[in-house]
Amino acid sequence: MTRFALKIEYDGRRFVGWQRQSNGVSVQQVLEQAAAKLCDGVIPASVAAGRTDAGVHAEGQVVQIDLPARLTVRAVRDALNFHLQPHAVAVVAVAIVSDLDWSARFSAIGREYRYVILNRAARPAIAAGFVWHVKSPLNAHAMQRAANILVGRHDFTSFRASACQAASPVRTLDRLDVRQCGPQIIIEASARSFLHHQVRNIVGSLKLVGDGHWTETRVAEALAARDRAAAGPTAPPDGLTLLSVRYPQDPFAGQQ
Amino acid sequence: MTRFALKIEYDGRRFVGWQRQSNGVSVQQVLEQAAAKLCDGVIPASVAAGRTDAGVHAEGQVVQIDLPARLTVRAVRDALNFHLQPHAVAVVAVAIVSDLDWSARFSAIGREYRYVILNRAARPAIAAGFVWHVKSPLNAHAMQRAANILVGRHDFTSFRASACQAASPVRTLDRLDVRQCGPQIIIEASARSFLHHQVRNIVGSLKLVGDGHWTETRVAEALAARDRAAAGPTAPPDGLTLLSVRYPQDPFAGQQ
Repeated sequence: MTRFALKIEYDGRRFVGWQRQSNGVSVQQVLEQAAAKLCDGVIPASVAAGRTDAGVHAEGQVVQIDLPARLTVRAVRDALNFHLQPHAVAVVAVAIVSDLDWSARFSAIGREYRYVILNRAARPAIAAGFVWHVKSPLNAHAMQRAANILVGRHDFTSFRASACQAASPVRTLDRLDVRQCGPQIIIEASARSFLHHQVRNIVGSLKLVGDGHWTETRVAEALAARDRAAAGPTAPPDGLTLLSVRYPQDPFAGQQ
Repeated sequence: MTRFALKIEYDGRRFVGWQRQSNGVSVQQVLEQAAAKLCDGVIPASVAAGRTDAGVHAEGQVVQIDLPARLTVRAVRDALNFHLQPHAVAVVAVAIVSDLDWSARFSAIGREYRYVILNRAARPAIAAGFVWHVKSPLNAHAMQRAANILVGRHDFTSFRASACQAASPVRTLDRLDVRQCGPQIIIEASARSFLHHQVRNIVGSLKLVGDGHWTETRVAEALAARDRAAAGPTAPPDGLTLLSVRYPQDPFAGQQ
């Protein structure tokens, strides 16, 4: 067997999330079922860099999976895409990982997420399921100033889900950018790793600053409180996309 | 009655096109049916700036419609969006047009379209229905050089549908830009007006240059031939979006 790294894209609306669950179809399940066609029907185990929740999308999720050594990267890509039909998952790049200690999850040194708010009166006709529709006008500049408070190394207890399994609530947020693009407010976040619901909980608080319910200092107070109840509500999954995962060496270098 | 201008957005996958037709649901039909709720059930007539085909999307289509004078722009926007549900059409802006000679179609002095090609091996998991999926690698620089040949005032007979009803095949293409954005090739076209299928027929020819089947000079020959058979095939509607319509005075100035 050979370890392959896959870069995959999916429409989160169709799935209960990345991880296998009893209550519906997961991305992991359809990917492993497609891969089983390359393994004489035996379902191989896969590990993803980020365990995205139900409704969360990915453009650059990275997955490791062990497949028969005789397969080329091109054969793996085309065969998986063939067998993944009609599911809304596509394998956009494939690489062979020669280092068997390489883990899609634990070798990752950076993850980048994008969250999109559609800030206008009219509901989305095109982007439904891919944006959080907020009708009240948001001040993107105030949201950026509040975001700046959260950048850096902090105890993010106030912004992690109560179900979060991480040993430590301390994370280093490298980048948290808020920009207005027509009626959209686009929030991009980069960190080595994130806590469960961290991006969505941060967006839920920034929205309260944007619509004037919170001052920017309230975000600093929420952070200092180390109490989930002190921060804003969790933003819906629709607007969130896992954009990319970074490794010390890009396994897909030279591919798009 | 008062003349209103509407800026609307729609997902072309759901419709047989802008115009009412006997073979399915059109954007015009669902919009006029929603507007009838504001007119005691009488269906008002609407006129659009661009009669988009089946499968073609719009982010900034402009429509004129006459509605009772007592309605405010906000009431029109919110009531239409309410009654348009669950159809994939949204009214993003509304303006009152005081000049009764104003026509959404004939007063327009510019139209802008975007065409998106997804140029990679893997089919789209997220953007299905919004891109033309082309697997063979395309050279965007060669496509831009070929596009430059088409910019300006020309007889576009080779690039118009045989069913095109326009009196003259002469049009002035103000802008035809090709740019690569990751795996996407984005083509933007601006003109006062376009012939039927003009953008899609141009894209079909540019694709032949991009994948090396045609030299750039072949596009000049196709243009000079004034014969539809001399140009490339019609690109699918999926990748095409009507972005915006320009008027001597922007009816929606100050609105997003």
